Amino acid sequence: MRLRNIPGARDVIAGHEAVIKEEKQWKGRWDQVFENDHPIRLEIGMGKGQFLMQMALQNPDINYIGIERYSSVLLRALERMNALEEAPSNLRFVCMDASGIGEVFEKGEADRIYLNFSDPWPKARHAKRRLTSTAYWERYDGILKEDGTVEFKTDNRELFDFSLEQVVEAGWEVKACTFDLHNDEKMNQNNIMTEYEEKFSSKGNPICKLIAERKR
Amino acid sequence: MRLRNIPGARDVIAGHEAVIKEEKQWKGRWDQVFENDHPIRLEIGMGKGQFLMQMALQNPDINYIGIERYSSVLLRALERMNALEEAPSNLRFVCMDASGIGEVFEKGEADRIYLNFSDPWPKARHAKRRLTSTAYWERYDGILKEDGTVEFKTDNRELFDFSLEQVVEAGWEVKACTFDLHNDEKMNQNNIMTEYEEKFSSKGNPICKLIAERKR
Ligand SMILES: C[S@@+](CC[C@H](N)C(=O)[O-])C[C@H]1O[C@@H](n2cnc3c(N)ncnc32)[C@H](O)[C@@H]1O
Ligand SMILES: C[S@@+](CC[C@H](N)C(=O)[O-])C[C@H]1O[C@@H](n2cnc3c(N)ncnc32)[C@H](O)[C@@H]1O
Repeated sequence: MRLRNIPGARDVIAGHEAVIKEEKQWKGRWDQVFENDHPIRLEIGMGKGQFLMQMALQNPDINYIGIERYSSVLLRALERMNALEEAPSNLRFVCMDASGIGEVFEKGEADRIYLNFSDPWPKARHAKRRLTSTAYWERYDGILKEDGTVEFKTDNRELFDFSLEQVVEAGWEVKACTFDLHNDEKMNQNNIMTEYEEKFSSKGNPICKLIAERKR
Repeated sequence: MRLRNIPGARDVIAGHEAVIKEEKQWKGRWDQVFENDHPIRLEIGMGKGQFLMQMALQNPDINYIGIERYSSVLLRALERMNALEEAPSNLRFVCMDASGIGEVFEKGEADRIYLNFSDPWPKARHAKRRLTSTAYWERYDGILKEDGTVEFKTDNRELFDFSLEQVVEAGWEVKACTFDLHNDEKMNQNNIMTEYEEKFSSKGNPICKLIAERKR
C-alpha cells in the first residue's frame, strides 16, 4: 500500500505523541517508552492500523508497536487513532523499513510479531524483499524472545507457499497452519480481521495463516 | 489406482516369495524376514512398485516393504520384479490396507515411510481415508522409530494443503517442504521419480513434497 504523497504528513507524524522518533535510541529499553514491563508485540507492515488498534483496545496489558514504511499510510493510522474517544496508552508507531528492526529492538524484546497481508513482491528477483524470506526470519529471531512467535496471514497463495518453504528452510517450526482460516474453528477463535483481510475475504478469497516459532 | 480384476491374481501373489503372507505374525521381528538388521522403510500405497524397486536396487543395505491394498495392482509389481535379472533380496510386499499397519509393525520397527501420490479422496466426508489425515499420522508414529520420518510427494495441491494442516495438527514437525520439487535443488537431490510423478510432472504439474518427523 502506498498512498499519494500527502503534503505535511511528515510534520503531523513528527508531532504525534504515539509516533516514536529516533527509534534506535530505545533499543533494549522499550519498557521505558510504555512505562511498564508488559509484553511487546509488533505488526510489521501495519498499513492503516485497523488490526493493531483493535488489538490494543482489547488487550490493555499488552504493548503494541505498529511498523510502517510510508508516512502517508501511517498518517491514516494516526487519524484513526485521533478519532477514538481515548487513545490507548499501549500503542505506538514507528515509521521505518522493517529490514532495520535489529537496530531498533534488542534480542528478546519482542514477544510476538504479526505479519498481515504483507506485500507479495511477485517477481522472483524481488523475493528478498518479501517479509517472509529466510533473511527476515533471521531478523525476527534476532528480536524475539526464546519462545516468541510470528503470526502470518495472507490470501495470496503464492506468497503463502513461498513463506512455508522459507520458514522451514530458516529452521523455524510451524506450530499451526491453515489454508482457510475463517473455516478453521480452532485457529479462527478470537481472530481480529485486518483491513486487507476484510477486503479479500469478502471477495471470497480464503485466508491462509501460519504460526511459527524458532526451533531451539 | 484399481485395475480390472485379474483372475488368478490372488494365486500368483500367494505363491510369490517376495510377498509376505499372514503379515501380522512378523510384527516385532521383521529383521527375521530379511535375515539382517538393516533399517526398514515402507512405501504405503506403492502401486506398481516402480519407485520402491529402484530404491531397493540402489540401496542394498536398506530393506524395503511395499504396501498395496489391491492384489491386481500388486500383481503388476510382481511382474516387474520377475522381469529383473536378479530380484533384490531387500524388497518385500504386503497386500493389506494401510489402516492396519499397527498390527503388522512394532513401534520403532520402521525407519522411514514413503507416501507417494496417495489417493486424494476429494470428498470431505472421505477425509479420514486420506493417508495424511491426523489418524494416519498417529498410526505412523506407532510404528516409526524415534527420529523416523515420513516423506510425502504429490502433485495434488488440495491434498498437499490438507496434509500440511493435518501433520502440524497431529503434532509433527515439518522438516522440509517444497511446492516445486523438481526445481528445488536441495530437495530434488537423489530424487527417484514414481510412476505417478513421471506422469504428472510430464504434464507440467509441479510436484509438492514434505518431510515430517514426530515432535518429542
Ligand atoms: C498490503 S498492506 C497490509 C496492511 C495491513 N497489515 C492489513 O493487513 O490490512 C502492507 C503494508 O506493509 C507496508 N510494508 C511493506 N513492506 C514493508 C517494510 N519492509 N517495512 C515496513 N513496512 C512495510 C506497506 O507500506 C503497506 O502499508
Ligand atoms: C495413486 S496410486 C500411486 C502409486 C505410486 N505410489 C506412485 O506414486 O506411482 C495410489 C496407490 O495407493 C494404494 N492405496 C490407497 N490407499 C491405500 C490403503 N489405505 N492401503 C494400501 N494401499 C492403498 C492404491 O491402491 C494405489 O495403488
